[in-house]
Amino acid sequence: MNLAKKFTIGLTQYSLSEDIESNLKKAIFFIENAAEKGASVICLPELFNSLYFCQSENIEYFDLAETIPGPTTNKLSELAKKLKIVIVVPLFEKRNLGLYHNSLAVINTKGEIIDIYRKMHIPDDPAYYEKFYFTPGDLGYKVFDTEFGKIGTLICWDQWYPEGARLTALKGASVIFYPTAIGWHPYEKQEHGKAQFESWQTIQRSHAIANGVYVASVNRVGLEKQNPDSAGIEFWGKSFVSDPQGIILSEASHDKEEVLVAEINLDRIEYIRRNWPFMRDRRIDSYQNILKRFDD
Amino acid sequence: MNLAKKFTIGLTQYSLSEDIESNLKKAIFFIENAAEKGASVICLPELFNSLYFCQSENIEYFDLAETIPGPTTNKLSELAKKLKIVIVVPLFEKRNLGLYHNSLAVINTKGEIIDIYRKMHIPDDPAYYEKFYFTPGDLGYKVFDTEFGKIGTLICWDQWYPEGARLTALKGASVIFYPTAIGWHPYEKQEHGKAQFESWQTIQRSHAIANGVYVASVNRVGLEKQNPDSAGIEFWGKSFVSDPQGIILSEASHDKEEVLVAEINLDRIEYIRRNWPFMRDRRIDSYQNILKRFDD
Repeated sequence: MNLAKKFTIGLTQYSLSEDIESNLKKAIFFIENAAEKGASVICLPELFNSLYFCQSENIEYFDLAETIPGPTTNKLSELAKKLKIVIVVPLFEKRNLGLYHNSLAVINTKGEIIDIYRKMHIPDDPAYYEKFYFTPGDLGYKVFDTEFGKIGTLICWDQWYPEGARLTALKGASVIFYPTAIGWHPYEKQEHGKAQFESWQTIQRSHAIANGVYVASVNRVGLEKQNPDSAGIEFWGKSFVSDPQGIILSEASHDKEEVLVAEINLDRIEYIRRNWPFMRDRRIDSYQNILKRFDD
Repeated sequence: MNLAKKFTIGLTQYSLSEDIESNLKKAIFFIENAAEKGASVICLPELFNSLYFCQSENIEYFDLAETIPGPTTNKLSELAKKLKIVIVVPLFEKRNLGLYHNSLAVINTKGEIIDIYRKMHIPDDPAYYEKFYFTPGDLGYKVFDTEFGKIGTLICWDQWYPEGARLTALKGASVIFYPTAIGWHPYEKQEHGKAQFESWQTIQRSHAIANGVYVASVNRVGLEKQNPDSAGIEFWGKSFVSDPQGIILSEASHDKEEVLVAEINLDRIEYIRRNWPFMRDRRIDSYQNILKRFDD
């Protein structure tokens, strides 16, 4: 194993605009800020350089996608190399003619793309019309062997699936990043907002607990309306880092642009897994029916 | 489907003594109390009629086990029939000569044992020497078709495994009961007690969220010392019921004997699953490696 015993991760939480170029500049500003604070592995939010276009179904938005590698990953590769950091870059991937994914690339300290992950679980809810845009991922679950050890990644809706976290942890991830774009329907926020947010945070803390890994969730902030008449989505921020016992180490606000940093400590993972050795007792002889849609 | 749209569950939280007979009387007292409060499906704590004997390894404790059916389930069958309720009865099962399980029986309103569940995930930690006593379950995951619809059951250490909850939910459970015996090592409580309890509650709430089911966890209370020199275990109580969104509907104290009741509402499950349709988007084509011990 080639592992740093400790390293620092950075999470960038910010708001987006229609201007792709200024969104990229903002991302770079926050990456530099996180690196100054000591972060070696920095994660951007889901679809990091555009508004959350999935609020409606419109074929023109496919123009926002680009290839990996492509102009955007090239720029961030230069930055990673300059700052000697790892960057998790979630973006709208154009894979081929008319074939698109919600993906991320992980760039190492040499500026090389180690590999990509393509979102496996695709939602489709009012104002989250992702099944229109994103072909389900076909690369399975991923860990990336960085200079700081193996990091895992999943994307947003994946966060509701214990299977995704388990499969990523089984590959040896010390931390699972969840770049995310989730928020409230403004008309629901008063009645359901608190419960929705708490469900979201609870299930991600549970992935940390079940697997004895760190979890880092990176969300955007701000109200995004596609047109003046729409209610829009109020992205709820609250990027956070959970330790392997489910303890929240660092947590952002609901509405401010912020950088979070937190330490990943492999000794802590070892300690938690020794004390609560859940991996030891898994009944892998009995899980076959997880491969069923429903067991009726 | 033969389902009551709504029914009330009861959870009995109490302390145990060395006197098996008085423990049974106490259980009956709390069952009657829960039934008076309107509960139709009532769950006792893990190993409901004895001290938590697994604090040490001693072959004499195998004498505490009995067959299912046996004298204890016979008595509780009479009670179930009299009160027209379903009872979840977790007890130490003697299956055959020298072969024991940590099991539960579910008794219906006619006083019949519908079926049994045998704990699948067996812990082994200081003062929780369960691998010495309990053969791992070989019946897989279970739902019980009661007069109030399908209820699922798991036992204690199972609660740390998202797989167990998923497999039980896939069988159509509206509620998953977790009879439990968990507590603090008194010498650890000050430093780690809060985080341990919160991990325990968080992961069970997450099973409710991931699966859109109710979760009812039933723990014991009290300090149990096997001998005056041992630190013992301070069972942390806090039996609770989570709704399908992870909202806590009802929660007991850390140290008092109590009965909790809560309503199971199938319309609420339907509503939550429509709004957050996690079942719809499971990537069952991609979960094969969950059957591996580790994916290295």
